[in-house]
Amino acid sequence: MLARGGVREVVSDRAWLRAMLAVEAALARAQAKVGLISASDAARVAEVCQEGNFDLVDLARNAAKHVNPVVPLVERLRSLTGPAAHFGATSQDILDTASMLIVYDALKVLRDDVTGAADAAGELARAYRDTPMAGRTLSQQAAPITFGLKAARWAAAIDGSADRLAALEPAVQLGGPAGTLTGFGDKAFELVEVFATELGLAAPPLPWHTDRTRIADLAGVLGLTAGTLGKIACDVILLSQSEVGEVSEAAPGGSSSMPHKQNPVAAISALACARQAPGLVATLLASMVQEHERAAGAWQAEWRPLRELLVATGSAASWVRASLTGLTVNTEALSTNLARLREVSEIDVGVAGDLVDRILSARGVR
Amino acid sequence: MLARGGVREVVSDRAWLRAMLAVEAALARAQAKVGLISASDAARVAEVCQEGNFDLVDLARNAAKHVNPVVPLVERLRSLTGPAAHFGATSQDILDTASMLIVYDALKVLRDDVTGAADAAGELARAYRDTPMAGRTLSQQAAPITFGLKAARWAAAIDGSADRLAALEPAVQLGGPAGTLTGFGDKAFELVEVFATELGLAAPPLPWHTDRTRIADLAGVLGLTAGTLGKIACDVILLSQSEVGEVSEAAPGGSSSMPHKQNPVAAISALACARQAPGLVATLLASMVQEHERAAGAWQAEWRPLRELLVATGSAASWVRASLTGLTVNTEALSTNLARLREVSEIDVGVAGDLVDRILSARGVR
Amino acid sequence: MLARGGVREVVSDRAWLRAMLAVEAALARAQAKVGLISASDAARVAEVCQEGNFDLVDLARNAAKHVNPVVPLVERLRSLTGPAAHFGATSQDILDTASMLIVYDALKVLRDDVTGAADAAGELARAYRDTPMAGRTLSQQAAPITFGLKAARWAAAIDGSADRLAALEPAVQLGGPAGTLTGFGDKAFELVEVFATELGLAAPPLPWHTDRTRIADLAGVLGLTAGTLGKIACDVILLSQSEVGEVSEAAPGGSSSMPHKQNPVAAISALACARQAPGLVATLLASMVQEHERAAGAWQAEWRPLRELLVATGSAASWVRASLTGLTVNTEALSTNLARLREVSEIDVGVAGDLVDRILSARGVR
Amino acid sequence: MLARGGVREVVSDRAWLRAMLAVEAALARAQAKVGLISASDAARVAEVCQEGNFDLVDLARNAAKHVNPVVPLVERLRSLTGPAAHFGATSQDILDTASMLIVYDALKVLRDDVTGAADAAGELARAYRDTPMAGRTLSQQAAPITFGLKAARWAAAIDGSADRLAALEPAVQLGGPAGTLTGFGDKAFELVEVFATELGLAAPPLPWHTDRTRIADLAGVLGLTAGTLGKIACDVILLSQSEVGEVSEAAPGGSSSMPHKQNPVAAISALACARQAPGLVATLLASMVQEHERAAGAWQAEWRPLRELLVATGSAASWVRASLTGLTVNTEALSTNLARLREVSEIDVGVAGDLVDRILSARGVR
Repeated sequence: MLARGGVREVVSDRAWLRAMLAVEAALARAQAKVGLISASDAARVAEVCQEGNFDLVDLARNAAKHVNPVVPLVERLRSLTGPAAHFGATSQDILDTASMLIVYDALKVLRDDVTGAADAAGELARAYRDTPMAGRTLSQQAAPITFGLKAARWAAAIDGSADRLAALEPAVQLGGPAGTLTGFGDKAFELVEVFATELGLAAPPLPWHTDRTRIADLAGVLGLTAGTLGKIACDVILLSQSEVGEVSEAAPGGSSSMPHKQNPVAAISALACARQAPGLVATLLASMVQEHERAAGAWQAEWRPLRELLVATGSAASWVRASLTGLTVNTEALSTNLARLREVSEIDVGVAGDLVDRILSARGVR
Repeated sequence: MLARGGVREVVSDRAWLRAMLAVEAALARAQAKVGLISASDAARVAEVCQEGNFDLVDLARNAAKHVNPVVPLVERLRSLTGPAAHFGATSQDILDTASMLIVYDALKVLRDDVTGAADAAGELARAYRDTPMAGRTLSQQAAPITFGLKAARWAAAIDGSADRLAALEPAVQLGGPAGTLTGFGDKAFELVEVFATELGLAAPPLPWHTDRTRIADLAGVLGLTAGTLGKIACDVILLSQSEVGEVSEAAPGGSSSMPHKQNPVAAISALACARQAPGLVATLLASMVQEHERAAGAWQAEWRPLRELLVATGSAASWVRASLTGLTVNTEALSTNLARLREVSEIDVGVAGDLVDRILSARGVR
Repeated sequence: MLARGGVREVVSDRAWLRAMLAVEAALARAQAKVGLISASDAARVAEVCQEGNFDLVDLARNAAKHVNPVVPLVERLRSLTGPAAHFGATSQDILDTASMLIVYDALKVLRDDVTGAADAAGELARAYRDTPMAGRTLSQQAAPITFGLKAARWAAAIDGSADRLAALEPAVQLGGPAGTLTGFGDKAFELVEVFATELGLAAPPLPWHTDRTRIADLAGVLGLTAGTLGKIACDVILLSQSEVGEVSEAAPGGSSSMPHKQNPVAAISALACARQAPGLVATLLASMVQEHERAAGAWQAEWRPLRELLVATGSAASWVRASLTGLTVNTEALSTNLARLREVSEIDVGVAGDLVDRILSARGVR
Repeated sequence: MLARGGVREVVSDRAWLRAMLAVEAALARAQAKVGLISASDAARVAEVCQEGNFDLVDLARNAAKHVNPVVPLVERLRSLTGPAAHFGATSQDILDTASMLIVYDALKVLRDDVTGAADAAGELARAYRDTPMAGRTLSQQAAPITFGLKAARWAAAIDGSADRLAALEPAVQLGGPAGTLTGFGDKAFELVEVFATELGLAAPPLPWHTDRTRIADLAGVLGLTAGTLGKIACDVILLSQSEVGEVSEAAPGGSSSMPHKQNPVAAISALACARQAPGLVATLLASMVQEHERAAGAWQAEWRPLRELLVATGSAASWVRASLTGLTVNTEALSTNLARLREVSEIDVGVAGDLVDRILSARGVR
């Protein structure tokens, strides 16, 4: 429930192993292309870098002895290929690049659900463009709005997250033991470019072993996305309250003790997932203080929260998409509730319709 | 590496299933004892509540439909036992009580490692009671201390955490749908007592569905313990620096690229684990704002951070124990480094020896 | 609005200056009592330690040069008293002890508001012991409860926080430059006791310069208290919604644009304050990792969040007290809303009345 | 010490009052320009919106009654101008726009210090381009680097923060009571544009009362900047250690008890400030969950952490600038420390020099 959608698969232990092997293979291919190792050595490395040649449990056990899983992976790899593998790289080069591959894949899945959620919100905005309802501020009915405007705001907010997710550019890491690219001679810069091209990632201007700006960018955008999704989930829950009854989800949940209940389970789950994010972002930001050339503790502290944050945000997106898709809007309840308000103010929804049109048009919907 | 020690096993998905089944069985037994269901019904429930009768994957899949795993578990359970099972309980009764069983087990494992770490520190304090070294404040050498005093402080700090861990009292949850104990009639209070006794947990004065003081107590103490362990790990890392060289771990780690390195891997891992805690504690504290009788989102938001916090703190304890056990103290480096300081101040370590004795004596060591 | 109640005054810059001077004076008096300095020197120090002899702005300016305000304070103090002042102490001794005096005073104010809030909740529990209303779970009406039970839970939860606040024992800090109590000779332990007695604080078994367990205890309990207050504020806000209308505050707020609104301003403010806490607790817990004998950065990082956390929690308590005191319960709305539920279930509130009695009796109310 | 630099002034209570008045005046001017109010009314509002016409203490007292300071401000304003002031706006329009003015000013100050810090780092990179030193990974000496490379990395990392700070676009808020721009008729969109132009802020596509993406963007970038500054401060502290001695600040601090100490006070203060950020960012992200059209608690919860985050990050930047400006590099210590390493590996600094050149050239330095 807290790991809905496709992100969980993408960040599994097995996916990490595959990503690390893809990185070692790409490094070897790139090094062959720039002439640092032979083509046959590179081919041998690439051939060996298959999941089936490595024992996940064994690697995990040995990872703990060296504070990272790359040391035993390279030992095993070199036992199969000789010294050509992992040439000139340091563990963090492999692990950071593998994590960027994982992030790349996770973002693809996440963006699909985010877009789906925005589309569902856009559809509601179109359908209820002119349906008036009570606007609510500080928990009280305030001036009237339209359901279309509420939904258009959801769509616009999600689109804002989607834009920021799309702008992230996962990059390779390659610096060698102390970030000086020692060992690659005058091929160093070319190697970084080719390595990045091999993996479909960006090439950074310099190694970022202890400059974690990229991780912080990612953390910030995921936290922002989770916050946006949480806001929408919160709205759905409040609108679903027994006493409000303005919306209901397509597949509400039951209770082990009260069969009459219609719990908005998708929104509740989304909110539970979204609430994970701020603490995880804080851990990642606090972990930016990485001393010297490679850090003793702060780097390793990133791994779990990064994974958890991807899963939590991905899961929130999947749930919000589920909540908004097929959301039933009870127009009768909208007008009944609004009737309370009408006593004190006329139904003037300002430029709500124009605002909806603006959003839909920005989304390419008419 | 970030999940060393026994806690990980104790909080596994399988352990959660066993805990939920133990709770359902205990509830039935308690209800039979106070006369709410028949002894044979209770026996049938207890008999059926075996891990083998339930499919974990299937439960997980159906859990998402109801925002909690108890609904499908009860469906399956009742298909095997009839309506006697889960009588009068709500999902949260089962899940909260199961989580307290998990916490109880996790605390046992954690306290063992915490005590082991304190013992190792105490041993160092005893061994180096009178060995002078440089005290360091604001990163600079300051007045001299002894290694014994440093280690005694570690022991005392860990003992402080151990005391707080020991004072935690996991309690059962039992309130029914809205916390009124409806359905148990005048047996309600007796039932809570017997239920608690069956499980070896405390009986709370009233249901705590949305009063999360107990979770916050636990979060606070785990956060405090992680902080204490992190401080010690940080000290070991700094004392292990190439330029300081005052301690080295029994099993330092190597590097994939630099075979000469002696990384203090246990302390580094401990610090990485300890750094997870503050963000997780914050999420748990933020989740205390649980509305009405049972919350839509904030309760469900507790599950992952509680599990992660137990694992991270347990892992930090296991790593600090490993780091301090067999820690080599380089007395030559202690005096060489102190020599810098001696130029500006005499070696007067005040009542360091008495402070060590006080701590060791409070720990029952002479 | 975010700093209601008396705590703000207690933690002001001026209060900090007074506390530091009280500590220097108490240290001198204690040192005279155990024979480390002369009675006349101590009298002179105590006489000089008056707020009027020190320029707050000047101290603040010079504090920045030394990373703490005690260095310039001692310079000024010694210019008035000669070297007897601040004998054998280090800056952190003075600042930590002063912070504990501040905490002591802040807790007194906070506990008064917390108790007042619990009393107001208890009064509501007594008054509405048997008034049925809809229980609500996962945002939906569930089984019925009584308003008395809801209020009794509030009272019990606040009492839980009050108990934990009352158990905190602020202690003096005294260790000298590296925590060895150098300079106090064989009077060291006696001095700590007398110093503590002079200030009405506890005497710790050993200096706690980098063992921040006491700060973490405080942070945890404040975070827990804020969470409890936030839960109650959230309940009041939800019960005040236009569509629910079951309670209204004694002094609801208006709007700059909509004069008809009745915003539950006290609850809203309380919730805004309570939401500050988790992040501040996290910062304090993260700051426990204080290296060596006195830390370069992590100790100094405590000052602002500690102050903010005291203010935020104190303000939340003051607002919740204001919200619950004179809260109007709209019994007609309680029954109208419950009527929806009655269609699907009978009004059986279980042992709600007994639960209320238990809580009131534990509070000494009949 | 925790509020160095110019940001503190920019976010003072008095600055907030000035910002709110500037917003009311700009709104009136804009409304006159689009023809919603008369030019003479607008002139009267602008004339009255002077700090001297308002009593800060009085406003603060009355703010608490309405959960925001705009209600009493508008009361006072209208008593001086009649109903033309604040036409069609809601409190949050004024406060959010005022906060964006404050942010705009704070960012200007912050960026100046950030740029100054980067320039100082760039200067070090240029000066020590080819000076070898020990690279350090996982707390141990690893492969050699140059001091120039270390400083160039600092510069590049700060430049990364500066770019992100420069990309932030504070925007006005204008929506009226429920975000429908009611009351402005067909002038609504034009009014927003003119209002934004009057204040030199961006015009948003739609009101963002409960879409806090802009606040989250700001929080993320400030958190990232603080993390980057914290990393550099940490490096300086570690390089300043007595046993390392590779750098010393231009104005190290003394101690109240140990006159021989040379504490790197600027770096220590910077680190203390930087450590405030993650918890504050988490609070701001958690506050994104703002229900309906305007939130009851979550919006108000932003005010303090936003201010604190600006101050903490600004202070960190000012301190890092102070730390790096005039930082003494002890080249003798660099070679002595490196000599340990040379036993196990040759001095090969790879393409360190080229990396430095790349960074300096990207910064426009030769």
